[in-house]
Amino acid sequence: MSEKVTASILIIGNEILSGRTQDVNISHIAKTLGDWGIVVEHCRVIPDVEQIIIDTVNEVRSKYDYVFTTGGIGPTHDDITAECVAKAFSVVLEQNEEIASRIKKRPAPDDVMQSRLRMARVPVGSKLIDNPTGGPQGFSLENVFVMAGIPSVMQAMLSSLDGTLKTGKVVRSHSVRLYLGESQVAEALSQLQDQNPLIDIGSYPFFKDDKYGTVIVIRGTETADLKDLALKIVSIGQAAGTEPEDMGLTT
Amino acid sequence: MSEKVTASILIIGNEILSGRTQDVNISHIAKTLGDWGIVVEHCRVIPDVEQIIIDTVNEVRSKYDYVFTTGGIGPTHDDITAECVAKAFSVVLEQNEEIASRIKKRPAPDDVMQSRLRMARVPVGSKLIDNPTGGPQGFSLENVFVMAGIPSVMQAMLSSLDGTLKTGKVVRSHSVRLYLGESQVAEALSQLQDQNPLIDIGSYPFFKDDKYGTVIVIRGTETADLKDLALKIVSIGQAAGTEPEDMGLTT
Repeated sequence: MSEKVTASILIIGNEILSGRTQDVNISHIAKTLGDWGIVVEHCRVIPDVEQIIIDTVNEVRSKYDYVFTTGGIGPTHDDITAECVAKAFSVVLEQNEEIASRIKKRPAPDDVMQSRLRMARVPVGSKLIDNPTGGPQGFSLENVFVMAGIPSVMQAMLSSLDGTLKTGKVVRSHSVRLYLGESQVAEALSQLQDQNPLIDIGSYPFFKDDKYGTVIVIRGTETADLKDLALKIVSIGQAAGTEPEDMGLTT
Repeated sequence: MSEKVTASILIIGNEILSGRTQDVNISHIAKTLGDWGIVVEHCRVIPDVEQIIIDTVNEVRSKYDYVFTTGGIGPTHDDITAECVAKAFSVVLEQNEEIASRIKKRPAPDDVMQSRLRMARVPVGSKLIDNPTGGPQGFSLENVFVMAGIPSVMQAMLSSLDGTLKTGKVVRSHSVRLYLGESQVAEALSQLQDQNPLIDIGSYPFFKDDKYGTVIVIRGTETADLKDLALKIVSIGQAAGTEPEDMGLTT
């Protein structure tokens, strides 16, 4: 069995912590990495504060196989992610000529160009992360991947990493919709969980089309095992006189 | 000047880390606490794993004035937040009769009731957090507030805490919309930030109605100072031949 590959996500930005901006990057990164066979085990949202970014990067890069950051790589004074990552690794920033030449393609007055070229500074030893939107690239240093905060740009950067990372078995989800309250299936689910330690059984109440119910999401690397377990969950719903929906493999 | 009061948010749940569920609790809690005068400085998303929950609760409760958790307080086997918080404080769980009597109002077969009564278990020494939706209450123990994960229930619980918490000065936001790229104002903003260390100046690019631009969000406790600074930012936009929009106080 291939080893599990883990990741941590760092969302860097005061605008998320103040509630001004609704984060959508966590779920996109988590889903994408999950599809590739990388399990996101940890996320943090931290402010644009140098020492906090440095300490957090150093803490998580030693704990997880990969670290993905979003935010703080624009041209303004509050964009400090690149210099913080450099400090975390005890290296200096240098201008990357590949990013610089992309930035210089769009002409600008000297002072504006100077600000834009902030985005070309990467820690010594970095590799570039392509930016298919045409803007400045992101970068990676060892196991830390530094991406933009704007969702469309982050998504483009992340997609360019497909096939380049170490991955484990993909954890698949198989869901069953039960028209029963969580409490009505709690005992049976608990027994199933005890009997199936390699599968993670989650229970999520819902209210839809005027009906209450519970979606059971079972997660594991072996789809045949998931299918077997889903049938048992369907039986639980049928035994209670309801008509469960086996939703099959889901995201 | 009143002292700053800080908070940390813990989102507990595999469904957020897998990307299955889009979190909306962080921004709601952050905005609500911000309006009360409590600054959210840190958020984490962690899995339904006992030791991780215990260690994280203990780490953040010593660092921030308040900790707010969401998720993991339902009736099923994967709802382990209450017992983890109890273990973090080295106390045991006990059945709270006020929650139990609310749960018992809705009749159910014995085994179902047994599962539902899991939601009445709180760590010894807890206070209840009211649940205006009518469901089981949440609880707090010292500075840790344990709430439901379902957004509507969490929001109801949080609203019941209004007026009960220690608060500092409210950090207000004042925004100016500039029809200029970030790089075009980067240098001027950097100087303004140096001149105004008590105000946090953030710069957020946007694309709306076919126009590119940058929203400058300035945050601080003194609205008069924010207004003065906003006027300076408007001048920067005007000097560049554009018509900035002073959006006034914003969330």
